[in-house]
Amino acid sequence: MPLPLKSWPEAAPRLVAVAGGRAPADLVIRNVRLVNVHSREVLDWEVAVAEGRFAYTGPDAAHCIGPETRVVEGGGRYLIPGLCDGHMHIESGMLTPAEFAAAVIPHGTTSMFTDPHEIANVLGLRGVRMMHDEALLQAVNIFTQMPSCAPSAPGLETTGFEIGADDVAEAMHWPGIIGLGEMMNFPGVIAGDAQMLAEMAATMNAGKTVGGHYASPDKGPAFSAYVAGGAADDHEGTAEADAIARVRNGMRSMMRLGSAWYDVESQITAVTEKGLDPRNFILCTDDSHSGTLVHEGHMNRVVRHAISCGCDPLVALQMATINTASHFGLERELGSIAPGRRADMILTSDLRTLPIEEVFARGVTVAKDGKITVECPHYDWPEEVRRTVHLGMELAPGDFEIPAPAGANAVTAKVIGVVENQAPTKALTAELPVADGVVEGDVAQDVCQIALVERHRATGGVVNGFVSGFGYEGKMAMASTVAHDSHHMIVVGTDRDLMAKAAMRLGEVGGGVTVWKDGREIALVELPIAGLMSDRPAAEVAAKAQRMVEAMEECGCKLNNAYMQHSLLALVVIPELRISDLGLVDVTKFELTELLEG
Amino acid sequence: MPLPLKSWPEAAPRLVAVAGGRAPADLVIRNVRLVNVHSREVLDWEVAVAEGRFAYTGPDAAHCIGPETRVVEGGGRYLIPGLCDGHMHIESGMLTPAEFAAAVIPHGTTSMFTDPHEIANVLGLRGVRMMHDEALLQAVNIFTQMPSCAPSAPGLETTGFEIGADDVAEAMHWPGIIGLGEMMNFPGVIAGDAQMLAEMAATMNAGKTVGGHYASPDKGPAFSAYVAGGAADDHEGTAEADAIARVRNGMRSMMRLGSAWYDVESQITAVTEKGLDPRNFILCTDDSHSGTLVHEGHMNRVVRHAISCGCDPLVALQMATINTASHFGLERELGSIAPGRRADMILTSDLRTLPIEEVFARGVTVAKDGKITVECPHYDWPEEVRRTVHLGMELAPGDFEIPAPAGANAVTAKVIGVVENQAPTKALTAELPVADGVVEGDVAQDVCQIALVERHRATGGVVNGFVSGFGYEGKMAMASTVAHDSHHMIVVGTDRDLMAKAAMRLGEVGGGVTVWKDGREIALVELPIAGLMSDRPAAEVAAKAQRMVEAMEECGCKLNNAYMQHSLLALVVIPELRISDLGLVDVTKFELTELLEG
Repeated sequence: MPLPLKSWPEAAPRLVAVAGGRAPADLVIRNVRLVNVHSREVLDWEVAVAEGRFAYTGPDAAHCIGPETRVVEGGGRYLIPGLCDGHMHIESGMLTPAEFAAAVIPHGTTSMFTDPHEIANVLGLRGVRMMHDEALLQAVNIFTQMPSCAPSAPGLETTGFEIGADDVAEAMHWPGIIGLGEMMNFPGVIAGDAQMLAEMAATMNAGKTVGGHYASPDKGPAFSAYVAGGAADDHEGTAEADAIARVRNGMRSMMRLGSAWYDVESQITAVTEKGLDPRNFILCTDDSHSGTLVHEGHMNRVVRHAISCGCDPLVALQMATINTASHFGLERELGSIAPGRRADMILTSDLRTLPIEEVFARGVTVAKDGKITVECPHYDWPEEVRRTVHLGMELAPGDFEIPAPAGANAVTAKVIGVVENQAPTKALTAELPVADGVVEGDVAQDVCQIALVERHRATGGVVNGFVSGFGYEGKMAMASTVAHDSHHMIVVGTDRDLMAKAAMRLGEVGGGVTVWKDGREIALVELPIAGLMSDRPAAEVAAKAQRMVEAMEECGCKLNNAYMQHSLLALVVIPELRISDLGLVDVTKFELTELLEG
Repeated sequence: MPLPLKSWPEAAPRLVAVAGGRAPADLVIRNVRLVNVHSREVLDWEVAVAEGRFAYTGPDAAHCIGPETRVVEGGGRYLIPGLCDGHMHIESGMLTPAEFAAAVIPHGTTSMFTDPHEIANVLGLRGVRMMHDEALLQAVNIFTQMPSCAPSAPGLETTGFEIGADDVAEAMHWPGIIGLGEMMNFPGVIAGDAQMLAEMAATMNAGKTVGGHYASPDKGPAFSAYVAGGAADDHEGTAEADAIARVRNGMRSMMRLGSAWYDVESQITAVTEKGLDPRNFILCTDDSHSGTLVHEGHMNRVVRHAISCGCDPLVALQMATINTASHFGLERELGSIAPGRRADMILTSDLRTLPIEEVFARGVTVAKDGKITVECPHYDWPEEVRRTVHLGMELAPGDFEIPAPAGANAVTAKVIGVVENQAPTKALTAELPVADGVVEGDVAQDVCQIALVERHRATGGVVNGFVSGFGYEGKMAMASTVAHDSHHMIVVGTDRDLMAKAAMRLGEVGGGVTVWKDGREIALVELPIAGLMSDRPAAEVAAKAQRMVEAMEECGCKLNNAYMQHSLLALVVIPELRISDLGLVDVTKFELTELLEG
């Protein structure tokens, strides 16, 4: 566990003494080309570190070296600030904060701004606090954005717990809270919803940053009204014009490259071609799957990508360091290599390909040559947090039967249509057969069953419907307790017996994802913490997740991001048709709708 | 008096409604070319204002106009953010905050960051609070930087009151305090002085900004040690290399154009030629005399000058708006034309010559065509603040006699040598005649008498010495209670009778500056508030100050900035030789020294 970090003023007496040559540094790094993100230059400078902070940055740190000082010879490599992820959700990696940190530190990420929105839906403020507390145990900087919208769609779904303005106000006093997590209820803000404005007011009154989420292409008065509410950034832009509108309105444009988000290339032209002042642009990931972390990287991947899109490497580095720090009021605390700041930095041989060769956090080597060299302590998660799948009854095939109207031989049913490579679904209809008074799916039409199984309050509630687009064949079922945003359980299948078995299996292991085919389980990812996260290492989770995707393919699925499509089927804030614990939801009208027509 | 300004979150419900077209704005400005300092662009945009804040900024504000909305037609002119002065001393204008505001608002200054260092020396924390309170009465934004160094030179002078770390900690809770005023005791910081570090710690712990003042060309370890102490900016740089060193070390480089400071041209090449990221450069005035305010301008003069030095006009405007706001953590409060921010803005026909045609603060016209259109309310200064010249006795010519050693016909005396156009003095010596056992000045050598008259505690103390460089002829005397930094009274003269009369005159009027020639007073600037400021309008004070300079010329003085040279003779932090209430001070050694040699 890292030593407690002294604040700059606490450390100042020693920093002054070290910089002035009156006391030795803990660490000196020499023979490097320092990337200075304040001046936007590369300098032949050296650094001296004490108390986990930079004491001296300048042409010659010889006067800071004592007999006990660790001296690192940089060999002419670049020394860059540790990378910052401006907005992200740890739960997307299916990992606890500790295991997430262990996965990304070797990629050079030393600061994260994380919104534990998923656990908030399952465990409320208490779950947020646990994430926050585990975050604060780490050797790197993990700041928590207080989730703003649980439930995401009030009246259309039931979460495990709700977040209110009082919760937000309380959390603002916690040591690791940096602001409010993305304010997704943009229609509420625009309409002047009192609770949404109160949550933002509590954040602003605490002097903290309100995260934005304006997921609409409309940049007219509705957008202006959203901005006037107080959101300070937005990562939902997808086009150059989105980025430009945000910056012109005094917001920071966060551009994301996640496992399934590709919004940098389309927006960075606001800087590279349109010449806007780059200071208001920030890079982030939003959502990274464990496989991406294990095989591709984290913020190093994003910076590298921004450079490959034509961005000057120093500007791209500013977008992942000082710009992020400034946005959150941390400019004098981190995000650059300058006196007083946390000594978070990276040795790399090349500014374009950005190999992460050695990572320092608070002056200590935390990773070298891709391997973590520091412990990432686990929070002592209480036992009940590992038992959040409350089914309330033994599920049986009959629970997944959809009764047909009396005497019908066939029915017209609404069907959730998955669209390849897109988050929105289509509201389809299909003619479906009836057997023994029960409506059946139809593999020939690529229509199978979907069920939303209530799991927070053990109500025994099961909402049934139909889904199309997965291409499933034969007898199969898949269940997941990752079911954005309220995270009940989504079960999809061609066979009601397997659907019941899959659901029961997740109840048994405390949540996760399971795939069944021909009578047996062929893949399982255990996510025992809140049904969302594993406290096993990223490589292990990534391997299981990979096996899970292969299992979906074995069942006939050919979608890209197949698992993500499964887990978003209950996301009742994105059109057109979704399922929730309250029923089928028409997300073009934000109202419940009937499954069967006519 | 302006209406209380609602905070952004308090105003948010209405701002959202106005931006969305559900409620009318108070003010709409149309047909302008808006300077957007976030994106660094000029846009054909309009603005709508409500609650003193921008509600809408965008291409068309028609939807914000109701029957009661004031609509201003811009006539195609530029709309720029109100200008910010990043560091300044109101007392330098010899004006109270109200009269200073009245003088600078027509020049487009709508935000000031002021360090009431002078009154702190005379009245301590109580005086700072009065300045702070008058500042908060104004229609524009006057933030107070808590003075850090009173006395400036502990042990070498006695101030009226002292400022300690507890005072700093207390002041951090006042509503108008934005940070710590310039930390001038840079040798103390470098040496690890506990009080200086404690003052900076109190400021940083309150989340506020520590102002710097590093008045040395040494950019080696001493400078690095100063930076490590926590100062976040510095306005004492005079060369390009100074500006670059500050920015590379994570400080903001403040570049000043004051009445007698010319540090923009020599430093702005760090941006215009060396290409450093301009975000860390800020324009300021530091010290403006009332004559400059009346005849030349304020921040408009500085921006215009920066542009004339080759700076891009939009970059120069950023240096006087958003860069300043960001530095003080006010980026979402002021410094740009964007939703939620205070509606401070200027209509101007030209971005290079910058005529200030109409000024708005918090959405209200505060000046038009050079005339103020708003009241600048005065604080009710208590009577004792107008009686701060405590002489303690009737001064007579004999009090200014310098006794010679017994039997001497001539002596060698140390003489303070004023140097044209420079703040440092020279430590000279002169052979001076003795008459009736008293050492006399010698007009032929341009040596006259100087006396430091104690005026805070009525001790009756008079310290006598000699000064050279003014060129005074005939019988004259000049006295001033503006006597940096401890602000006793400096009397200079060729005639002891007139010196006594001049000193007594300032006791009578409560302070100021008086010039006597041939037996009578020929100029007087009354500065009754703390002996430093007038509460009369700037034009009146400037006229009297102009007359005072003419009177000095009539006495034979040919110096540029003659009055400033007079008022700095007790500034015992700048080499080489000065005078204080404790004696003659050798400022190369920071110790008291004897007047007569041998």
